Amino acid sequence: MFKCEVDEHIYLAITEMRHAEALYNVIAENRDHIGQFLMFARTQTPEDTKSFVQTSLNKFSAGTDVPTCIWYDKQLIGSIGLHISEAHRSASIGYWISKEYEGRGIVTKCCEAMIDYAFRELKLNRVEIRAINENLRSRAIPERLGFKHEGTFRQDVKLYDQFADSIVYGLLAEEWRSGN
Amino acid sequence: MFKCEVDEHIYLAITEMRHAEALYNVIAENRDHIGQFLMFARTQTPEDTKSFVQTSLNKFSAGTDVPTCIWYDKQLIGSIGLHISEAHRSASIGYWISKEYEGRGIVTKCCEAMIDYAFRELKLNRVEIRAINENLRSRAIPERLGFKHEGTFRQDVKLYDQFADSIVYGLLAEEWRSGN
Amino acid sequence: MFKCEVDEHIYLAITEMRHAEALYNVIAENRDHIGQFLMFARTQTPEDTKSFVQTSLNKFSAGTDVPTCIWYDKQLIGSIGLHISEAHRSASIGYWISKEYEGRGIVTKCCEAMIDYAFRELKLNRVEIRAINENLRSRAIPERLGFKHEGTFRQDVKLYDQFADSIVYGLLAEEWRSGN
Amino acid sequence: MFKCEVDEHIYLAITEMRHAEALYNVIAENRDHIGQFLMFARTQTPEDTKSFVQTSLNKFSAGTDVPTCIWYDKQLIGSIGLHISEAHRSASIGYWISKEYEGRGIVTKCCEAMIDYAFRELKLNRVEIRAINENLRSRAIPERLGFKHEGTFRQDVKLYDQFADSIVYGLLAEEWRSGN
Amino acid sequence: MFKCEVDEHIYLAITEMRHAEALYNVIAENRDHIGQFLMFARTQTPEDTKSFVQTSLNKFSAGTDVPTCIWYDKQLIGSIGLHISEAHRSASIGYWISKEYEGRGIVTKCCEAMIDYAFRELKLNRVEIRAINENLRSRAIPERLGFKHEGTFRQDVKLYDQFADSIVYGLLAEEWRSGN
Amino acid sequence: MFKCEVDEHIYLAITEMRHAEALYNVIAENRDHIGQFLMFARTQTPEDTKSFVQTSLNKFSAGTDVPTCIWYDKQLIGSIGLHISEAHRSASIGYWISKEYEGRGIVTKCCEAMIDYAFRELKLNRVEIRAINENLRSRAIPERLGFKHEGTFRQDVKLYDQFADSIVYGLLAEEWRSGN
Repeated sequence: MFKCEVDEHIYLAITEMRHAEALYNVIAENRDHIGQFLMFARTQTPEDTKSFVQTSLNKFSAGTDVPTCIWYDKQLIGSIGLHISEAHRSASIGYWISKEYEGRGIVTKCCEAMIDYAFRELKLNRVEIRAINENLRSRAIPERLGFKHEGTFRQDVKLYDQFADSIVYGLLAEEWRSGN
Repeated sequence: MFKCEVDEHIYLAITEMRHAEALYNVIAENRDHIGQFLMFARTQTPEDTKSFVQTSLNKFSAGTDVPTCIWYDKQLIGSIGLHISEAHRSASIGYWISKEYEGRGIVTKCCEAMIDYAFRELKLNRVEIRAINENLRSRAIPERLGFKHEGTFRQDVKLYDQFADSIVYGLLAEEWRSGN
Repeated sequence: MFKCEVDEHIYLAITEMRHAEALYNVIAENRDHIGQFLMFARTQTPEDTKSFVQTSLNKFSAGTDVPTCIWYDKQLIGSIGLHISEAHRSASIGYWISKEYEGRGIVTKCCEAMIDYAFRELKLNRVEIRAINENLRSRAIPERLGFKHEGTFRQDVKLYDQFADSIVYGLLAEEWRSGN
Repeated sequence: MFKCEVDEHIYLAITEMRHAEALYNVIAENRDHIGQFLMFARTQTPEDTKSFVQTSLNKFSAGTDVPTCIWYDKQLIGSIGLHISEAHRSASIGYWISKEYEGRGIVTKCCEAMIDYAFRELKLNRVEIRAINENLRSRAIPERLGFKHEGTFRQDVKLYDQFADSIVYGLLAEEWRSGN
Repeated sequence: MFKCEVDEHIYLAITEMRHAEALYNVIAENRDHIGQFLMFARTQTPEDTKSFVQTSLNKFSAGTDVPTCIWYDKQLIGSIGLHISEAHRSASIGYWISKEYEGRGIVTKCCEAMIDYAFRELKLNRVEIRAINENLRSRAIPERLGFKHEGTFRQDVKLYDQFADSIVYGLLAEEWRSGN
Repeated sequence: MFKCEVDEHIYLAITEMRHAEALYNVIAENRDHIGQFLMFARTQTPEDTKSFVQTSLNKFSAGTDVPTCIWYDKQLIGSIGLHISEAHRSASIGYWISKEYEGRGIVTKCCEAMIDYAFRELKLNRVEIRAINENLRSRAIPERLGFKHEGTFRQDVKLYDQFADSIVYGLLAEEWRSGN
């Protein structure tokens, strides 16, 4: 398979249509968990997942996104993607993981692999991660990886019937190189 | 014409293809001025302007952008646009003006009109303005209008052969209502 | 809002997706009235209105149409649109209005504004209005505005299970200028 | 070939890309002749002809046009097309022919074949032909075929730097049936 | 109509949307017969037929296919199409016919007309016919017409829940010319 | 990177736009070598390579192709792709390699990886390889890998101003499993 190995258990693979069923199943089993901060999970149908995969593939084809699934011992357990601004040589990373696999540092490792890909292969200059203020697990990842807290956007995300603040973290190529 | 009146001299009008020539002329006369913080201005050709206008109209048609030109006594003197995130009920504003008309508070007035449009007509919840750190004239506008400085993105913009920081300002509907 | 003021009560505004609901409501309340000469009104669903608005916006974006709604004291009460032939510097006007607002000269005033826009702003050379032979109210408008009856197209419109004749009226820029 | 036989010398065939070169050659040899009333002929390049053929094929595929070339003894000598309004069960016919083949009644015969196709095969209700007022040869055809002169559109066509009037002729299915 | 005459009873006509209903009816009446070797026939709905016709028209417009229906005494009784590779000057032919009209040599005659069209009009160099190994009726046609058996593709076609072998037959322009 | 490891020196990676320059360079350095049996190589411009990469990515996004480059010690040295027929659970493989790396069994190894991917991951049933009759190096690969020679297509490929025969080789999933 076309994949990026993270460790002996984990790899990332470009999300393809043949993964749509497995992807849907993880979302369906984690509706409340993922849905706490990502509204799509609550109502996602198998058709929605297929549409999402097709849209993601189109963005990969256009060179603006690198959409991947996280695989652990050949089981699809989550998603991590890179969204690229070629003009500004920057990218942002987004991710979620099945509740069952939380707390083992898997997403942190996957982010490291993505950051490496962004800085060393794609030669980008900046990587950004955004998280909803209350999503402490999500925020812990950029903090652990040495990102700098660069801003707090007030009411920047509509989450169900409320507005939430989002925290923006940034990391520069020069920081990654020096820190690794 | 289909316009939004700002004061007795100034109005905003949806940018249409028949404005492309006038728009190009203002850009061409202000290459260095606009180009200091917006790279497109330095190399813009009449064909580029037409492509830009068509892309803007397509975004207006898709409901994600409200691209307008600033007219002063029936002269096209600048540009101001709204970029909308329907899902999050938020928008960002971008603008530039001919050097000759700077310093008279025109952009500030146009921003007020756009903010009013965003909050009162479109019923949005948040408006954002981003400016390059060194662009003090541009930064003065959200500061003057009561926006809150919410973050500083390091090296977030590629400007010619360098990276510049950008400053993000946010304003909430509840603040605008109370302040007006 | 981006509008063309007609008088202190009336303005025209480019039809946007956020107007679709109000537009649908006027159509639904006027199914028989509008539907007498415009078949779409009889069966229009809210989804049809949205499709129509999107198609209209795409035509605006392509520069071939200027689709607007008629607003009276901030109430959407009808529709008037311009269809442009750039190659021949000509345009045609189509319109309908809620039964409740008929008989007050509103459509005539709106047509005047559109004709002014066509001749003075868009610099067109000819404006055309077509009406079904039996639609006397509709025909009265170009007659009142000095259009010339240029032809009668036999069975040119399929109206439900019958064919109707349409009357074509034309007005030239030179006539509008001299007459105003 | 896929054709509609008109007489032992003449047939009409759907215009395909492989006819583009022959089509261009006839246009190029008749620039002044065709160009008198059809502006495209004066400046047409081989690339323009290919674009035109592709656009015509797309319209055929969409069911709105039946674009054909006129062939005489296996020589491409002109063009005749049907533009269909499915909603109103009507169509219009347009045509031109090489100067060399004028005056032999060829276009009249081809129109008859097209009208027959429109009324008997497509079951349309109305066929329309428009001609520029000064184009007496073109006008003679609907007159000869029993069309009724239904209107004169003033300055309805921009021809180079002038505006020309166009004459509209109409024919109904019931008239064709009774007359043939 | 735009057709290719095969004999006094039979002609081929480009498949148009207005033929979709007749085409669907033949398929529906022949579900088992056609469906034995062509899976689409078993489940085809009227909407499927319309989609198929539109796709075929788009391919005709792109110049890669010549999709036709077989008409016998003005009755649609089958389908025959040419799929063209411009780059290699070659084409393949596919066909099916209503059970009722089988055994009269109709498809063989239609194939001859298509081959003639391919070699003499389109100036192609090679025509190919593929048939499922067990489809003896279909295989008889290229064999009768002098095609050479060029290969047997093992399990190359998925037919319901099994894989079938297909036989490939080829004919060269030089062979057709010499043989006719 | 997202890759499929073949051995310690070789991997395959989905062809992305950022590889276009390296890909062009290998083609340009091997115009005569690759061009002997693949016409594109002789005239390929950097723009052609970009178009090819974009088309390939679009096919990957549509799920019909897996276009990859062959990398040897981080050097792009060739290309290998899978073209998939989902309906028939089959695929074909195409490839070329820089002259400098020929004769080391690299393409054979890459084909094995692709075949494994096709049968084990994509669960396909049949893999096909076609080669021009005279291209003995290319033909040696399926022969070495146990494919069966299933047919010889006469004059099936236009190569410059001549027609060449192509040889078709097939391999079934059951054969691969038993043989490995």
